Amino acid sequence: MNHNDAIRLFAKTLQNLEQWMDKATAHAQARSFEADVLVQSRLAPNQFAFGQQVQAACDQAKYAAAYLSGKPAPSHPDTETTFAELRERIQKCLGFLETVQAQDLLGAEERKVSPPWLGGKWLRGDDYLVQVALPNFFFHATMAYAILRHNGVELGKMDYIGSIPTQDA
Amino acid sequence: MNHNDAIRLFAKTLQNLEQWMDKATAHAQARSFEADVLVQSRLAPNQFAFGQQVQAACDQAKYAAAYLSGKPAPSHPDTETTFAELRERIQKCLGFLETVQAQDLLGAEERKVSPPWLGGKWLRGDDYLVQVALPNFFFHATMAYAILRHNGVELGKMDYIGSIPTQDA
Repeated sequence: MNHNDAIRLFAKTLQNLEQWMDKATAHAQARSFEADVLVQSRLAPNQFAFGQQVQAACDQAKYAAAYLSGKPAPSHPDTETTFAELRERIQKCLGFLETVQAQDLLGAEERKVSPPWLGGKWLRGDDYLVQVALPNFFFHATMAYAILRHNGVELGKMDYIGSIPTQDA
Repeated sequence: MNHNDAIRLFAKTLQNLEQWMDKATAHAQARSFEADVLVQSRLAPNQFAFGQQVQAACDQAKYAAAYLSGKPAPSHPDTETTFAELRERIQKCLGFLETVQAQDLLGAEERKVSPPWLGGKWLRGDDYLVQVALPNFFFHATMAYAILRHNGVELGKMDYIGSIPTQDA
C-alpha cells in the first residue's frame, strides 16, 4: 500500500458516504420527516453529531492529502447545516483530493508532518498516515454510518465498503 | 506504509480496545451494574452487539495477517459472552499477530487472496489490505467504541488513537 492508495481509499469512502446519505434521504421521505434533522443527530451528548462527523471525515482526508503531498490545504469552514450543504462539502473535498496525484506523493513516507495540534513536534509521513490519518478518517466515517444506522437507515456492510476489485479465478 | 505497518496498527488498536474495556469496567463499577451487560449492547436491533464487534475486529486483524503472510489462521470460535472472555479473545488474536513478522509479509502486495466469501474470486494482497481489511477492521473497532460511548463510558479521541510516535522539532 502506498500513500496514493490511501488517498484514493479516502475518496472512495467519501463517495460511499454520499450513498449512505442517499439512503438516509429516502428513509426520511418514506417516514415523512426532514432528512436534515439527522445532521444534528448524535450517539452521545458529548460527541460530534452527524454533520460534524462528515466534516471531520472530510478534513482527515483533506489534511492527509495536503500534508503528505506538501500542497496547501484549502479552507473549508464548518458551516454546513443541511444534507445539501454536506454534499457540497464532500464534493469540495473530493475535488481537492483529485488535485493530489501519485507523483505528488512520492517520498511522502519521509516528509516531516507537523500539524498545529502537535505543538511544534512532528511525525514522519508514514507514521502520520498509519497512526493518525487512517484510524481518524475511518473513525469519523464509521461514526457517520453508525448515527444513520441508529436512526433506522437500512445500511449494510457493502454500503460501507463499496465496490472491491475482485478478479476471476 | 507496508503490510507489516498495517498489522502492527491492528495490534495497537486492539490493545487500545482493551483500555476502552478497562474504562467501561470502571464505569460499570461506579454505577453498580455488571460490565458484562455491555457485551449484548448494540446501536440498532439488526446490528452486531459489542461482543460481536470485538470478535469481528479480531477476525479482520487475524485474517489479514494470515492471508497476507500465507500462514494458516488459527480457529477462534465466537463463543465469548463476558468481558473476561473477550479479553482472552483479544489476547489470542494478539498472540497470532506476533507470530507474523515483517519478513513473512514481504511480497504480500502481490499475493492472491481468496477468502471463502469471495466464492472463488480473488484480490491482490494490496487490494485486500486497502479495500477490505483496513476499512473493515476500523469499522468494527469504531463500532465497539461507539457502543461504549453510547452507554456513557467516558472515552475520547486519544483513547481511540493511543500513543503516536511524535518527534521533537
